[in-house]
Amino acid sequence: MCELMGMSANVPTDICFSFAGFLHRGGGTGPHRDGWGIAFYEEGGYREFRDPHPSVDSPIARLICDYPIKSNVVISHIRQANVGGVKLANTHPFTREMWGRPWCYAHNGQLSSDWKSLPLNGFTPVGTTDSEHAFCFIMGQLREHFPQPPDDPERLWALLHRLCEQLRELGVFNMLLSDGDYLYTYCSTKLAHITRRAPFGEAELSDAEMTVNFVEHTTPDDIVSVIATEPLTHNECWQRLQPGELVVWKSGEICARYVSN
Amino acid sequence: MCELMGMSANVPTDICFSFAGFLHRGGGTGPHRDGWGIAFYEEGGYREFRDPHPSVDSPIARLICDYPIKSNVVISHIRQANVGGVKLANTHPFTREMWGRPWCYAHNGQLSSDWKSLPLNGFTPVGTTDSEHAFCFIMGQLREHFPQPPDDPERLWALLHRLCEQLRELGVFNMLLSDGDYLYTYCSTKLAHITRRAPFGEAELSDAEMTVNFVEHTTPDDIVSVIATEPLTHNECWQRLQPGELVVWKSGEICARYVSN
Repeated sequence: MCELMGMSANVPTDICFSFAGFLHRGGGTGPHRDGWGIAFYEEGGYREFRDPHPSVDSPIARLICDYPIKSNVVISHIRQANVGGVKLANTHPFTREMWGRPWCYAHNGQLSSDWKSLPLNGFTPVGTTDSEHAFCFIMGQLREHFPQPPDDPERLWALLHRLCEQLRELGVFNMLLSDGDYLYTYCSTKLAHITRRAPFGEAELSDAEMTVNFVEHTTPDDIVSVIATEPLTHNECWQRLQPGELVVWKSGEICARYVSN
Repeated sequence: MCELMGMSANVPTDICFSFAGFLHRGGGTGPHRDGWGIAFYEEGGYREFRDPHPSVDSPIARLICDYPIKSNVVISHIRQANVGGVKLANTHPFTREMWGRPWCYAHNGQLSSDWKSLPLNGFTPVGTTDSEHAFCFIMGQLREHFPQPPDDPERLWALLHRLCEQLRELGVFNMLLSDGDYLYTYCSTKLAHITRRAPFGEAELSDAEMTVNFVEHTTPDDIVSVIATEPLTHNECWQRLQPGELVVWKSGEICARYVSN
């Protein structure tokens, strides 16, 4: 299994504090030694950093901790390989362009062997993971139904929820997906979230000795939500998503929820 | 204008020495302050680093100099913006997946306004540059002609040369393109290359006080070619491509050349 972390914020926000805790799970406090990656949607575009080595030893991961990249949406993943060897092509997050936007995706879980028969519709995996195959399946289905982005985004969200439900039937499928505006978080077994807004307080990491006083780093209007496989801090109240639940985030707030029938 | 640098090698090789000289042109010895990027095809996959800030001041660029990433193909670019604002979405190299491979591209030059009417065939630009539009045009044409990779790669190369010639008619179009196996280098006005093989000697950078003795870093079988807008060293004999020439590289050696009719 792997671990996921995502962020949605209404102002460009750096993820250094949360990432510092998260990366310790990549070979330090957690067993996820098989690579890591992080993707940033910044004001001017998209970029990602991926490394097939343990995040706790990675000079690139240390750089990300020390170099505040201000983003509205972040997706990160640390890997404990099951399907697919330990290599860069199998390292999340995965990216594809659709409708002139970079879509980014990371998956925690494992699907049954049936995933190989999921139709791809023009998006082809580069690596050999069930995760990337499922991503290509989702992208292909979305583009098949909507050659252009639909005017009513709720039609897209409802379809995305159905696709996630279909994948959940094949195994464990916790997922983060974004087009840079919206962050989609789907829970199959494990996903927790917290929204921080004024009045801001202090937070203490669970995985490293580190405390931050958000008052010193925020303005009263900031709204920042963090979503992770397991809560990253131990003195705040994280909420868990329900199995089968898709939560759609924008600018740090929930704008839609879809639950299992 | 911008500057390009590429590498093709028969063994995984780091680009630290060449990149150390190249990045100085990004706001140091050269005027290309509007961002930089580098893409690596490693044994296990593909990754890229991009930054919309001058490479000479960039902590990410410094990391790339100090952290040897061993690759068979590298594409790098430093930008002096003409078409498209200074932002991440306009920062080269650009990437798209085709046939289950990540294709990477960087461009030096500027096209006339006619580039906006080049057909896209399913690949859509994320940013606003002529460069990315031309990349999407090339990818769309290749996939239109070859829904699957052709058995005879020379058919692909001949088509690619025709497409590059078509783009050269619109302006200045020096280009690097790769699918990870082959490196394609097309010259419209300026592109030089050098192939290093045994017996290896010393090389001195033109843009920084730095010398490397390749004997200490290679085995007698290594073949490493570097391609750049301008020669990166001043004590070696670089060769220039001809305008209209497409050179196809594999494992450090030239495997095909196409010249203008």
